[in-house]
Amino acid sequence: MTQIKNIGLFTSGGDAPGMNAAIRAVVRSAIYYGIEVTGIRRGYEGMIKGDMFPMDRKSVSNIIQRGGTILKTARSEQFRTKEGRQLAYDQLKKNNIDALVAIGGDGTFTGARIFGEEFDIPVVGLPGTIDNDLCGTDFTIGYDTAINTVIDAVDKIRDTAESHDRLFIVEVMGRDSGLIALRTGIAAGAETILIPESKTDINAVFERLEKGRKDKSSKIIMLAENGKDGDAFEVGRQIKEKFPNYDTRVSILGHIQRGGRPSCMDRVLASRVGVAAVEALRNGHRNEMVGLIHNEIAFTSFEHAIKHNIDINPDFLKIVEILSI
Amino acid sequence: MTQIKNIGLFTSGGDAPGMNAAIRAVVRSAIYYGIEVTGIRRGYEGMIKGDMFPMDRKSVSNIIQRGGTILKTARSEQFRTKEGRQLAYDQLKKNNIDALVAIGGDGTFTGARIFGEEFDIPVVGLPGTIDNDLCGTDFTIGYDTAINTVIDAVDKIRDTAESHDRLFIVEVMGRDSGLIALRTGIAAGAETILIPESKTDINAVFERLEKGRKDKSSKIIMLAENGKDGDAFEVGRQIKEKFPNYDTRVSILGHIQRGGRPSCMDRVLASRVGVAAVEALRNGHRNEMVGLIHNEIAFTSFEHAIKHNIDINPDFLKIVEILSI
Amino acid sequence: MTQIKNIGLFTSGGDAPGMNAAIRAVVRSAIYYGIEVTGIRRGYEGMIKGDMFPMDRKSVSNIIQRGGTILKTARSEQFRTKEGRQLAYDQLKKNNIDALVAIGGDGTFTGARIFGEEFDIPVVGLPGTIDNDLCGTDFTIGYDTAINTVIDAVDKIRDTAESHDRLFIVEVMGRDSGLIALRTGIAAGAETILIPESKTDINAVFERLEKGRKDKSSKIIMLAENGKDGDAFEVGRQIKEKFPNYDTRVSILGHIQRGGRPSCMDRVLASRVGVAAVEALRNGHRNEMVGLIHNEIAFTSFEHAIKHNIDINPDFLKIVEILSI
Amino acid sequence: MTQIKNIGLFTSGGDAPGMNAAIRAVVRSAIYYGIEVTGIRRGYEGMIKGDMFPMDRKSVSNIIQRGGTILKTARSEQFRTKEGRQLAYDQLKKNNIDALVAIGGDGTFTGARIFGEEFDIPVVGLPGTIDNDLCGTDFTIGYDTAINTVIDAVDKIRDTAESHDRLFIVEVMGRDSGLIALRTGIAAGAETILIPESKTDINAVFERLEKGRKDKSSKIIMLAENGKDGDAFEVGRQIKEKFPNYDTRVSILGHIQRGGRPSCMDRVLASRVGVAAVEALRNGHRNEMVGLIHNEIAFTSFEHAIKHNIDINPDFLKIVEILSI
Repeated sequence: MTQIKNIGLFTSGGDAPGMNAAIRAVVRSAIYYGIEVTGIRRGYEGMIKGDMFPMDRKSVSNIIQRGGTILKTARSEQFRTKEGRQLAYDQLKKNNIDALVAIGGDGTFTGARIFGEEFDIPVVGLPGTIDNDLCGTDFTIGYDTAINTVIDAVDKIRDTAESHDRLFIVEVMGRDSGLIALRTGIAAGAETILIPESKTDINAVFERLEKGRKDKSSKIIMLAENGKDGDAFEVGRQIKEKFPNYDTRVSILGHIQRGGRPSCMDRVLASRVGVAAVEALRNGHRNEMVGLIHNEIAFTSFEHAIKHNIDINPDFLKIVEILSI
Repeated sequence: MTQIKNIGLFTSGGDAPGMNAAIRAVVRSAIYYGIEVTGIRRGYEGMIKGDMFPMDRKSVSNIIQRGGTILKTARSEQFRTKEGRQLAYDQLKKNNIDALVAIGGDGTFTGARIFGEEFDIPVVGLPGTIDNDLCGTDFTIGYDTAINTVIDAVDKIRDTAESHDRLFIVEVMGRDSGLIALRTGIAAGAETILIPESKTDINAVFERLEKGRKDKSSKIIMLAENGKDGDAFEVGRQIKEKFPNYDTRVSILGHIQRGGRPSCMDRVLASRVGVAAVEALRNGHRNEMVGLIHNEIAFTSFEHAIKHNIDINPDFLKIVEILSI
Repeated sequence: MTQIKNIGLFTSGGDAPGMNAAIRAVVRSAIYYGIEVTGIRRGYEGMIKGDMFPMDRKSVSNIIQRGGTILKTARSEQFRTKEGRQLAYDQLKKNNIDALVAIGGDGTFTGARIFGEEFDIPVVGLPGTIDNDLCGTDFTIGYDTAINTVIDAVDKIRDTAESHDRLFIVEVMGRDSGLIALRTGIAAGAETILIPESKTDINAVFERLEKGRKDKSSKIIMLAENGKDGDAFEVGRQIKEKFPNYDTRVSILGHIQRGGRPSCMDRVLASRVGVAAVEALRNGHRNEMVGLIHNEIAFTSFEHAIKHNIDINPDFLKIVEILSI
Repeated sequence: MTQIKNIGLFTSGGDAPGMNAAIRAVVRSAIYYGIEVTGIRRGYEGMIKGDMFPMDRKSVSNIIQRGGTILKTARSEQFRTKEGRQLAYDQLKKNNIDALVAIGGDGTFTGARIFGEEFDIPVVGLPGTIDNDLCGTDFTIGYDTAINTVIDAVDKIRDTAESHDRLFIVEVMGRDSGLIALRTGIAAGAETILIPESKTDINAVFERLEKGRKDKSSKIIMLAENGKDGDAFEVGRQIKEKFPNYDTRVSILGHIQRGGRPSCMDRVLASRVGVAAVEALRNGHRNEMVGLIHNEIAFTSFEHAIKHNIDINPDFLKIVEILSI
């Protein structure tokens, strides 16, 4: 059992629904095990500036259901430098912090990995990103909420698309990953899905529209951001050119995907890995992300977690094709 | 009591949540009063093409809660011509339709007015548009749902804005009216609101941002579409230029505002004016819109309804200023 | 202009969504006009105990969208006594509070009226209750949210009722008022509505069920609590006895009706009357409730506001009958 | 490859959100593979009565997002008899149905198993129940939606509980399983959870309340229905007796848990197993349920699927204890 006395806790990178549930879980389980918790505001930026405060069990009352992160988040240029990280480490020492829990995505863990190697401080990570683009966990905190937010929005779009017999290109987030587009495409009954990982491109969309049923009163094309065919406006432009008869519209869902009350599954996931993170630090883990694989707690080195070789299940694309007939 | 035997019912123009509740109310109250109902698909377009079908009370079962319109909607170029309208009238006669209920906004009523003057057929209108830009009713069917959809979205955006200390420009619908932006701006706790009707412009936004509290962790600027300062991207560009220190983002909510399950108030409004429309036809009304003023059924000539001189309550803008301190 | 220096602000009675929006509006507009605000926790109870704290504009940041009341609420037996009220007044004096804004319903205003007569302190009230049972305002803060919550719930119940061909008795809140049941009954497409104000009773329900269409796959009966025919279990028991062929179920929606993010209209209402309350105190108003009638700010004496002679629009019951054919 | 020509499709038992998504998936994938589909209304009851109709790809348009089941569901006493099952089989033959897809829970599969043994017809099942009480799938269709519905409701209850400093006993569904209570208890931040599977009882609740933090402004106790300590009213009565100082309230969420738009995950699950069911029939599977284990399609004999020995992860109860400090 490693003797940890004071855990520094922060969120970093893009915010995700469920981060507050994870914060609550870390704070309460630390206190449960007799460990103090210091909240660090705005990620590495706040660490460098020493923007820290002691947290108690009441600090996290009534936050499990809130979107965003009460610890706020930011990106830090300074932390990318050796000097910045030294400043951060000095602040941690000054505040008697002897372990860290980092909630975030791959940028967060890239920083955490370097920091954990340069300085003698155990760091454990929790997967907090709507993009679901980390290895070592079936789902990241925020993904389930984000896909439900997308579905709510596309169901609304479907109402108006049906009324007007329209085709909509709906662009969703995901950074370099098509995982949000993939599941929401199935769940929204999309005609086809364009994601960065697939070899298909705009021509596959054309083909699908040509072969597809003509008597459908609405069509949704789900597009992941940052694909090789351009954004929704560009894809829309090409479809309009090729299919002038369609009444084609574009909707970029944008930042609504980052907010909102976390779903039940995101809260449960955040609670489980939050408790496990504190227990992991007590058990001597370091430089690892705590995830959930096959419904069991799993540890993955930061190095592996950020590898980004998430495979796209080819069945999913087949299902979209079958179900949109 | 005018002897009406068969009401032709259609939705036209942009769809709005609650149109189905209005359709249900018209169909059921007509049947209640012993009148037949013929559904006309895709507004004036379907009227010209004779795309019609008899509706019974089961045709409208379980639709009160659905967004969109089961009668579908469209815009018709042909109906703008005398020839088109003659074709439409011939189809009505062919189908023994001797009265019309038109659900839509000002384009719909412009057509209805001309049609009702050219041909001897009573037409009554129901205000169905999310924009709330009709005279003769306190609220239009769809407005209440749309502003709640906007609020849901902006609450989500607020979550992420708070986490990142960001300023968001949120663009909402309204065509030429700022009424969606106005109420949602108050309800979202916006810093300021830019609407077509106000004399203020982007400089008022600049001033507000300069005078405003610097320690706020997030700021929302609510922008109505089609304003004189350009769309959200343009306004965002100008704010970024003037306030480079703000982390400024843009969100255009788009077509999600048109869909979704109608709110309770929209369903009640649609049900009340739907019943009243049938009773009005029986009582000899024609060329009028049925609205709700001060919670009572009110009739307004189509001519007056589409006048578009909706006054913006100046108190609302004052309230935004006071409450965003 | 009355010179008010420090407003004591509290919520009392049953909580309602939008109370936080009202709190925010009072605090910010007071500060805008150079007046201090003292928050009083748990209504009259906290007033007696001196449970008070200064509020600034940041105290009410990011609360406009939250259900419940950050000032908490309670019922106070002690305040019903002269001694209790004297203690309360002493505490106000001790804290230099020279005016009060009370957010609540008729219990709150009954207390406020007596207090304002006994002691020389201006009191202004804001209508905060989901029941909509106050005179002097078209709607109370919380009503619109509550009816939308009911509709969300009944839409879900309708899904399962349709699948199983069931009849559901749904009991909603309202204390002695049927206003929640009335609008939600229309909006949910209820078969019939049982409310305390109507002369109809369980026999009217029987009659309706006998005359009604037999081929309907689901039926909803909307029941206001505290009616003369008993609660939903009792009404359900009688229906089962009379109509053994129906698969009859009961659902009491309960306290979910009190919570949740306030609707757009509730936030706008709360914001408008909140600002108006502060302006009213400055203009010398006292012993009045600030409401909204026909979309304009209106003042009503506490005495009149709590009179409870809210008329039920008979058209509403007619509409339910027509639309459920 | 087994030559299947016409699949009979039905839903049975309690309805669950996502059943329509499953229906859509079965119909469209059957058609994709050149197989006809016959819809059977009201489960085994409709099978016996021959209440059947041919389905095409348009029959399932725009239903993926709807709660309930368009095929309706019922329980059948007659199917429990040999004679009833013979009638059902005769109807299938008459309608040229040579395979069945059954969507439901353990009652459905109990019937399917017997039927599939008695008669020479391949039957494949899809897990459709909110209770998540089947072996052979990580989650059942409807569970994810139901737990989100519970969370939405409890978040609302939390709002009012916080405002009034109350303790709420919230009763959720689950038949004999505590799985709904378990995950929602964690996600709602419950004080403690009472489920049929746990050895703990009301005394554990008493102990928890005695040891727990006294300064908490609200407490939620999550109770699964059909537990050994009685329903929420009985548990509430005992708590009131033991802790008269608490302001204790009861909420039974009831049938709202069965309805509503299915969550993204439920739609994806339903779509995947729906496609797999048709492929399974083509590949000669029979008497098996198609589930998803570790994100992969998995087949389980009906006999095993209904065994009901779902283990409760003890970590979950530990987590509730830790996080409610």
